Amino acid sequence: MNERLLNHIQSKVKLAAAEVELLETFWKEKRLPKNEYLVRNGEVCRYDSFVISGSFKAFYIHPKTGKEEILFFAIEDWWATDLDSFANQAPSNYNIQALEASVVQQISFPSFEKLLLQIPGLERYFRLILQGYTAAIQKRIIQANAYPAEVRYHNFLEQYPEMVQKIPQYLIASYLGITPEFLSKLRRKKS
Amino acid sequence: MNERLLNHIQSKVKLAAAEVELLETFWKEKRLPKNEYLVRNGEVCRYDSFVISGSFKAFYIHPKTGKEEILFFAIEDWWATDLDSFANQAPSNYNIQALEASVVQQISFPSFEKLLLQIPGLERYFRLILQGYTAAIQKRIIQANAYPAEVRYHNFLEQYPEMVQKIPQYLIASYLGITPEFLSKLRRKKS
Repeated sequence: MNERLLNHIQSKVKLAAAEVELLETFWKEKRLPKNEYLVRNGEVCRYDSFVISGSFKAFYIHPKTGKEEILFFAIEDWWATDLDSFANQAPSNYNIQALEASVVQQISFPSFEKLLLQIPGLERYFRLILQGYTAAIQKRIIQANAYPAEVRYHNFLEQYPEMVQKIPQYLIASYLGITPEFLSKLRRKKS
Repeated sequence: MNERLLNHIQSKVKLAAAEVELLETFWKEKRLPKNEYLVRNGEVCRYDSFVISGSFKAFYIHPKTGKEEILFFAIEDWWATDLDSFANQAPSNYNIQALEASVVQQISFPSFEKLLLQIPGLERYFRLILQGYTAAIQKRIIQANAYPAEVRYHNFLEQYPEMVQKIPQYLIASYLGITPEFLSKLRRKKS
């Protein structure tokens, strides 16, 4: 098990030494070259994946325009999983693809269930992760509907400074629901 | 503690008899007349609220148009809480208001923290609730961006049949991001 994941978990919940030892046996490292998929639309998300290095985009294809639409990004210390597909072992509604050579720590669904039974204290960790994600996604809906592009871009810079370094600008534009040209204009205006 | 909330919790996690007894001491009933607020934009959401009867809308005011924009609805067996505001005891970004005379079961934030320490098995319950909500909100973002209004309305009917009975049509239209006139047209077409 990678230290990075262990630190992330221990930053949110206290575990006994025996639990840490047990926890470490549950994870496998996977290396993905650029463009490889963690999950594809229509397939079941078999693993919960924590990003150790690299970056991912979660996206769906707009049925009319055929264009990629960004649902979220995942970089170091983020989870890159279609949780609905994973939790129900049902086909995914979207895709998660590596934006660069990346490394994740993975756990299969049967192992995940076993892990939570054996270390119930982890329920709290995953609850806290979901709580933060729910808050972020609600804010995103409000911003997308009610705030001008300039404010949304400014908030993105403030909220996710590390993403701005790693994620290509045209993908951030897609996430914000604006054209890459308009994003360039906003960047020039800012600098 | 209301049976309805206890049943909801017990449908997702197993609790010992002593835990049920303890759990029951943590909740208070609150009755709200129509139009009363559970939380207001700028105020801290002091209680986690589970809806026993009635219905609520969560909404924010569009800064440009001044119009209400619907974030979510809550009816019986739903939680009606700004989780971000509640969890961080920070000002809310939106409002939650009763659409009719309603009854909720409530717990304050300090009690909620204590409850989870005393009955850690509830972490799983709240994780599962959040997991379902995260899946629903991701689907909503995908649908809002990529699917025509007719499909979105159809999916809403299928996913939330009880809401269609209780929630005024013009609010469902707002939730779906369409005009009430267009929703009427879709309804006529369907029937």
